[in-house]
Amino acid sequence: MTITRDHCTTLDANDPLRHFRERYHLPKGKIYLDGNSLGLMAESVPARVTDAVTRQWAEDLITSWNRNNWFTMPRSIGNKIARLVGGGTDNVIVADTISINLFKLLTSALAMRRDRKIILSDTGNFPSDLYVAQGLNNFLADGHELKTVAPEDVIASITSDVAVVMVTEVDYRTARRHNMKALIAKAHTVGALVIWDLSHSAGAIPVDLLGDNADFAVGCTYKYINGGPGSQAFVFVHPRHHATAMPALVGWWGHENPFAFDLEWKAADGLVRQQCGTQAILSLVALDAALDEWADVDMLAMQKKSHSLCQTFIDLVEASCAKHRLKLAGPRNMAERGSHVSFQCDEGYAVMQALISKGVVGDFRAPDMIRFGFAPLYNTHVEVFEAAAMLAEILDKRLWDKPEFLTRKKVT
Amino acid sequence: MTITRDHCTTLDANDPLRHFRERYHLPKGKIYLDGNSLGLMAESVPARVTDAVTRQWAEDLITSWNRNNWFTMPRSIGNKIARLVGGGTDNVIVADTISINLFKLLTSALAMRRDRKIILSDTGNFPSDLYVAQGLNNFLADGHELKTVAPEDVIASITSDVAVVMVTEVDYRTARRHNMKALIAKAHTVGALVIWDLSHSAGAIPVDLLGDNADFAVGCTYKYINGGPGSQAFVFVHPRHHATAMPALVGWWGHENPFAFDLEWKAADGLVRQQCGTQAILSLVALDAALDEWADVDMLAMQKKSHSLCQTFIDLVEASCAKHRLKLAGPRNMAERGSHVSFQCDEGYAVMQALISKGVVGDFRAPDMIRFGFAPLYNTHVEVFEAAAMLAEILDKRLWDKPEFLTRKKVT
Repeated sequence: MTITRDHCTTLDANDPLRHFRERYHLPKGKIYLDGNSLGLMAESVPARVTDAVTRQWAEDLITSWNRNNWFTMPRSIGNKIARLVGGGTDNVIVADTISINLFKLLTSALAMRRDRKIILSDTGNFPSDLYVAQGLNNFLADGHELKTVAPEDVIASITSDVAVVMVTEVDYRTARRHNMKALIAKAHTVGALVIWDLSHSAGAIPVDLLGDNADFAVGCTYKYINGGPGSQAFVFVHPRHHATAMPALVGWWGHENPFAFDLEWKAADGLVRQQCGTQAILSLVALDAALDEWADVDMLAMQKKSHSLCQTFIDLVEASCAKHRLKLAGPRNMAERGSHVSFQCDEGYAVMQALISKGVVGDFRAPDMIRFGFAPLYNTHVEVFEAAAMLAEILDKRLWDKPEFLTRKKVT
Repeated sequence: MTITRDHCTTLDANDPLRHFRERYHLPKGKIYLDGNSLGLMAESVPARVTDAVTRQWAEDLITSWNRNNWFTMPRSIGNKIARLVGGGTDNVIVADTISINLFKLLTSALAMRRDRKIILSDTGNFPSDLYVAQGLNNFLADGHELKTVAPEDVIASITSDVAVVMVTEVDYRTARRHNMKALIAKAHTVGALVIWDLSHSAGAIPVDLLGDNADFAVGCTYKYINGGPGSQAFVFVHPRHHATAMPALVGWWGHENPFAFDLEWKAADGLVRQQCGTQAILSLVALDAALDEWADVDMLAMQKKSHSLCQTFIDLVEASCAKHRLKLAGPRNMAERGSHVSFQCDEGYAVMQALISKGVVGDFRAPDMIRFGFAPLYNTHVEVFEAAAMLAEILDKRLWDKPEFLTRKKVT
């Protein structure tokens, strides 16, 4: 059965999340399927940021640290994110970047397992996560080792010499999803800790950190959460580790009494010690505004919409591009996937450039993946239909075979 | 000779930097002497931030990483800061926070001196800098030691077992300034490295990192540079260390080819490796706008103005508050000071609260210091006169002795 545009229109009309779309700024003439690199701006953001600049900063100045709650935003925003990842209350803070937070948690975990030297990860992890472990190990030069296996081999590789497992729940290329509950359970049977990177999960699929008994997690806020360019990352620490987890990287925002200016480091109780230095407030304000859009999002409706968008896209592309050598990345079972769809594609870079030139914005991930992210709050089935049709046209007519698409621009 | 208001008016009329004042937003009815906690907003900032939100993010979306130079801003902004600290070209980047950058440099330095275990600092350092070393040492648990001496004893304490000296050039309380050139020279004679924290120097006093042969430095941008609340910090690495300095904390923005998504960490050439994760762009944009105001500031004129404001304030306060027990913190020689003035003051907290209630905004630093920062670009001698007069009135009439001023609010 071929999926028609009309069918997609009907799906959109019946979408319980359809009213969210109008809350976001959609650039004219674009089908934006790159929420997994930078989400759209919520229409509520500009006024909030302008207020932060022209009133909170310019007028209220230093009093804003209290009056406008700048100092506590990492915690208040953390609690808003917690709802999206099943983190409970006061177990999530927002600060710094994913890599930095991963470093904090990795050093916290290694200090809790001083008799073990192995950090286990997989080849589907976001490379920067691996760099964090490699950089730390190079510095320590004391036998700590990053062991990287295939994603499907992680659980079997969790042996009693593993200090910490460090994996990304949803693969940034294939969308393959780890079984969080099973992986954690296995790790705990051998005394290993687990750190999750939820960068391609938060705001895309439901996550149940407390329900799955997670130890630690980090995640991104500029993708599906739409927090803005480079908005701060989050950290989750299970309450059972609040008093024991101590990062190597600390600073005054994590001190038990930051304004005493005590010369001795004394960790704040609980999660607050995972804060380090002063946060970039203007970006935090944009993120805070973005999260307010999420306050009443039903996570199961979000998941259902995500599945529907992804499945529709897969079906359409596989039907219309059958004669081209596109290969779906990742599993077919929706429960084992995140909210993006990638295809391995010859000349994928050029194909994506051609798509972007036609207003369909996805992205390319080396070596050969074209990736399309489906943001449940604002993408529609009709957009999915149009995007698949454009991809088929570009492949059928070899519209990608032009010098301007084939030449890769180097980011310097 | 008593300094009169008319004299201050004349000084302001002859101030070669007087035209800068109109570029900043001055809250009505306030004399703002807290540039060393959060500088004023330049009037150019709101339009730049709005453009970043409503055009660069909302319309240009991911293309902004190239089109609007988001990806290279840490380097381009770094070069703008370099002018203020004598850093040359391509030796300064902006990223993350002071504490995090200090951690990067501290681990870089320790890895360059693996046979030495001592980190030397002083009791005048900003406490969070000490926390960074303490947190790292606690994690390493391998004999690394933070040795903290009195500021005047630092140079004599640099012995051949010191791996790295880590000091703040200008004391955040007393404004005492280290002799950068002499300290570095001593350190280098015994093979020690030096990391400078320029948080209370940059934009306040001239610094000559290359001229003084500095190894490493970090600094703040939200104080005298007026970068905005929590704006990102900077890192300086002398070119002789670009190829050898390798932090323990690394990430994809420091990889030699970040978009290859290589599973192996390979450090970028030079300073770029001190970048780690994705930066909070909205805050960077505000900082970039703030720095454009500094493009034509003459550093010697800045220093002269700073000396004049500070000396005038000291003279006025000491003359008008002689009968109260105020004690000037730090040296009297202006060449040995930064651009703020602190007095030890009984009931200093309440006195500062009373001052703030009258529109004179300084701040209090435990245990007993009232602190006034003089931003050479926008503070005036008339403001100095008014502030000193208000302080005298508050002390003379005991206006601070009210419950609302005496009760310290706790920041939570």
